[in-house]
Parts: sequence; structure tokens; C-alpha cells
Amino acid sequence: MNRRLLLKRRPRGFVVHDDFAIDDAPVPEPGDGEFRIRIEYISLDPAMRGWVNERRSYVPPVAIGEVMRAFAAGRVDKSNHPDFKVGDAVTGLIGAQTHAISDGTGMVRIDLSLAPMERWLGGLGMPGMTAYFGLLDIGQPRQGETIVVSAASGAVGSLVGQIAKIKGLRVVGIAGGAEKCRAVTQDLGFDACIDYKAGNLAKDLRAACPKGIDIYFESVGGEVLNAVLAQMNLFGRIPVCGLISAYNATELPPGPTNFGSILINRLRVQGFIVFDFAERYAEAGKALAAWQAQGRLIMREDVREGGLEAFVDVLNELYCGGNNGKLVLKV
Amino acid sequence: MNRRLLLKRRPRGFVVHDDFAIDDAPVPEPGDGEFRIRIEYISLDPAMRGWVNERRSYVPPVAIGEVMRAFAAGRVDKSNHPDFKVGDAVTGLIGAQTHAISDGTGMVRIDLSLAPMERWLGGLGMPGMTAYFGLLDIGQPRQGETIVVSAASGAVGSLVGQIAKIKGLRVVGIAGGAEKCRAVTQDLGFDACIDYKAGNLAKDLRAACPKGIDIYFESVGGEVLNAVLAQMNLFGRIPVCGLISAYNATELPPGPTNFGSILINRLRVQGFIVFDFAERYAEAGKALAAWQAQGRLIMREDVREGGLEAFVDVLNELYCGGNNGKLVLKV
Repeated sequence: MNRRLLLKRRPRGFVVHDDFAIDDAPVPEPGDGEFRIRIEYISLDPAMRGWVNERRSYVPPVAIGEVMRAFAAGRVDKSNHPDFKVGDAVTGLIGAQTHAISDGTGMVRIDLSLAPMERWLGGLGMPGMTAYFGLLDIGQPRQGETIVVSAASGAVGSLVGQIAKIKGLRVVGIAGGAEKCRAVTQDLGFDACIDYKAGNLAKDLRAACPKGIDIYFESVGGEVLNAVLAQMNLFGRIPVCGLISAYNATELPPGPTNFGSILINRLRVQGFIVFDFAERYAEAGKALAAWQAQGRLIMREDVREGGLEAFVDVLNELYCGGNNGKLVLKV
Repeated sequence: MNRRLLLKRRPRGFVVHDDFAIDDAPVPEPGDGEFRIRIEYISLDPAMRGWVNERRSYVPPVAIGEVMRAFAAGRVDKSNHPDFKVGDAVTGLIGAQTHAISDGTGMVRIDLSLAPMERWLGGLGMPGMTAYFGLLDIGQPRQGETIVVSAASGAVGSLVGQIAKIKGLRVVGIAGGAEKCRAVTQDLGFDACIDYKAGNLAKDLRAACPKGIDIYFESVGGEVLNAVLAQMNLFGRIPVCGLISAYNATELPPGPTNFGSILINRLRVQGFIVFDFAERYAEAGKALAAWQAQGRLIMREDVREGGLEAFVDVLNELYCGGNNGKLVLKV
């Protein structure tokens, strides 16, 4: 059977089990020019919460009754497509289910000799691309500058900080809890990491960034953004990759009261979505794989068991900082 | 005597008369390589409120006991400088006083055959430069796009909208009151103008911008910014020129709750100060003067009488929307 996670109704706040239905349907057969994928890993991404809202964000919402949208990875197990053979490992936006049919559109063939399958949903997949383009293209880092990276132990933040180190910046992470901060500095090589749960964000930022902040890689929003805004340097850049603190809010949270720093310090605050860089994925993939092979870029996955039944609980962990590295669900 | 407006103490909220002192000192004599200016017009600019705060913004604060910082225009009445002759008309950051001494640093010689003296503090001065660089360099307008311009009847906004028309955009102003809106469309040629005091900002914006908003030229902040954020198009730009609604606030006003639009719509929000473009003033000056001469750029000044004694009251009018065009005080 093809087990699928269907969206049953629009969630309010954190998703709950009743927002979804598990459905067993016959395994689908690929048509002419199509192939079938047996899915092994499903990616859990912060953006998912936005995808199930009624309101269009940067992609249309998942419709009620549809398979939950998800990046996933697996192996081709049946093919009528000339370019995809049985046994090929692939990733793509193929949904939270055990089997998917594709005509190849948007599918990427992955090389398991370079990295295990789950990493192609992490550092060598969309999160890696997001870190690469968000930091280098939007952030425009220059050697000797100071960057602050929020969600520093997460899938994207952990890579942003390491790439910034490669580029010669002072790198300060922000993460929740002493153990995450220890890993960010000792395992990933950040120069410092601030525990936002310790309650001294402004003071800790000043101590960790004695020359001020030139780049803030924004994934969380809320109080962290506001505290950083007050310490940005002239002509600083803020790539806005995510605002995870707001994704489960049932009302719009307050905006940053330090918005005026954008004017006074002539900041550039710029939102981006990795899809905007689709034409340059090959460039990023090459660079990321090379840094990984050289041991300069540590990529960590947080693989969870439990199959589709665990989807709701594992997704919510992402919004509570329960993960360490790229969160992936084994199917 | 040299009548001077001195800063007596740090204002709180709107400036009051007791924050300043009028002081009559002997008329100063220029030293070697210096010249003296008899000031005729003083420019009143939104940024002035920030200049008298304790906290450094983009320039050091005016010190207690110092002459109030101000752009001004006048004629050289005594000179020991080889390049500035008696009778030359000049502008510069020479303060709220009747006489100033200069060694020429930052002074601009102006041509009164091209425009009256007060206009060199407006459309042909810093406000003109601000509109030019803010729209063209930061805003990056493209023919056929829709721009919304806040403070549309003000010194900068009135020029931004007209330059945007020259560049082939649909131009929608926001101003306070029916008469200002009438002038913005009928006299300045904007395609539409929304009266923010009418209380239907979001609805009126939707009606005036059926294709959404590509550029928002931001001078005011607050509720206007928030309403516009919700209607920005993909890859929109927001040059942040000012946030006048917050300049007299005694506490930080709330930030925009629609901040998330920056992410979803991949906006670029970028602060700027005209001083950053000092090396290119000549380029802007030439373009502005040419458009003015061709009758394509209407420049309006709102000249007030009353001398330095009227400074406080006239400045406060600026923050209450009491002006129509560039506000200038006759000395």
C-alpha cells in the first residue's frame, strides 16, 4: 500500500494529529514517461507550517485532502522514464508518503557514494543551498566582518556559520541551551555562541560582538531580531531566511521596535527563498560537496523514527528547538 | 550682532521654546582662508529632531550650548578666501544663525539665475538629492511598476513621485487631507493620492494599486508602513528615507506587525542617508536642474517668516504635516 499523510483541515497554532489523516491507498503505477519512487526519508522544514495555512505565501497552500507537501528522498522502484532507472536514488518535492510518481520534473539524482541519503535533504539539499545563497548572495560577507547566526544549531544556521568561517568572518551563533551552544562552538567551530534562553541577549551580544554586527542571518524573528537590530553596524545586511518564532502564532506578533536602526545604520534587510536561485543549484551543490569532502563543512542530520504517524510530533519539535541539525523522518 | 539659536537642553517629545536660547553675539570676523556668510534662509528638515537627541544617530548630536545644526543659504559678505567672493550665494551646513564663518568645507556655490535661493535648500539641494538617489539607486524603479510615496506633498516625496513619473511608473501618493491630495495629483501629476486621515488606508491602497506595490518610498513609518507591507509585490523594494512618525516619540513605537512580508515577498528594505552619495551630488544636481528647467519637475517651497524666534513652532509643524513643499525659514 501507499501510506500517505493527507491534510484534513487548516491547523490553528501548532499542528495537531487531527489536522491530518493517515491514508492507505493502492501503490500507484507510473504511466508513460513516469517513474515511481519508494520514499525512505522525509524532510521536516520550518516552511511547512506556512504551507498548510489558507493564505498563499510564496507557494500555493496545500489543499485540504491533498498529500502533505514535503521534500523527500528515496529510490526508483519502477520506471517508464528514459533517464531514471530502477535503483536510482533521488530527491524532490514528492510529499509525505511512502510512494510517489514523477515525470522527472524537479527531481534530482543523488550520489550515495558522496553522502548518505538523508544528507541530500540537509547540507547537500535545500538547507545547504539556502545557507549558501542566503549568506553569499544576500549577505555579501567580507573577510573580517562579524556575523550573527540565529538558529545556529539548525539545518541552515549550522552551515551558514561554517561557510562564514571559511570566508574569514567572526562568527557568533545564537542557540537555545548550553549543550547546543557547546556543540556550535566546539563541534562546528563558531567563535562564540549565545544561549538566548539565558535571558541576557543584548548584553551577551555586546560581549560576543565587540566590533558590532555586520551581518545578521535571520531565521527566527521576534526578540532576537529586535536585540540584534540595536547592535548592527553601518551598512549591515540582514538576509531574512525565516521567522520561525512567528510560524505558529495565531495572531501577528509585534514587529521589531528597533526598526529605526534600518534607517540610522543604512541596513539592507532582504527576504529570500532558495527557489529563487534554482538556476544556480549546481554551483552551490559543487561548493558544498567539496567543502564537505575536505572536512571543512560538518553536516549533521537528526533522523527520527516512527514513520508518517510521527510527523506531527516531530514537526512541532522543530518549532520548539527540539532538533539538533537537519530534522529528517525515516519512513 | 550675530543672532544664534543655541541648544539649551535635550528635548523630550516635541521641541519647546525652553529647549533653545536665542543669543546675540558680536558678528564674527573671518580669519585667513575663511569667509563670512550673511544667512537668508534656514532649512527645516525632519532629521533635525534626531540631531538634538543625546544618542548618536548617523551624525553626532548637537552639543548643549552649540548653535543648532541646520542647512542654510546666504551671501558672502566678507572674504579672505580665494574661491569665495563677496556677493557669492552659497549653501551649506552653517547653522541656525544670522552669520556664519566657513573655510569652504562642504559649501556649495549656487546660481540664482537658475532658481531662487530658497530652492537650493529644497529641490535643488539636499531634499532633491535625497529623492534622486533614494528613488533611482535604492528603489531601482522599472517602467510600468507601481510606486507608493509617503509624505507625498513634502519636500522629498513630491520630487520622488515626479521623478518616478518621468521614469514611467504608476505613482500613488499618500498625504494628509483632501487639499494636499488634490495638489499632489492635479499640480504634481501623481496618478492617485490617498488621504491617510480618511481612515481607509488598506482599502484605498488596494483600489489605487490594482497590480500591487513594487516600490514603497518610506518617509513616515508606523501604520502607513504596516499597511503597505501587506500589499507589496514579489521582489519589491522599500527605500527607507525617514520614519517621521516616530521622531518625537518618547518611547519606541511598535514595529510593523507585517514584517513577515519581507520574507514571503522577498522584499529589499534598505535605509539610506543622502550624505552617503556625496561623491555623486553633481550628477543629481545636473539632472534635477535640467528636469526643472524643462518644466517636468515642479519644486515648491513653503517659506515662513518670523526669524529664529519662529524656529521651534515652524519645526513642529513639519512633524504635524503643516507644511506644503519644502519648509524654509526666512531669517
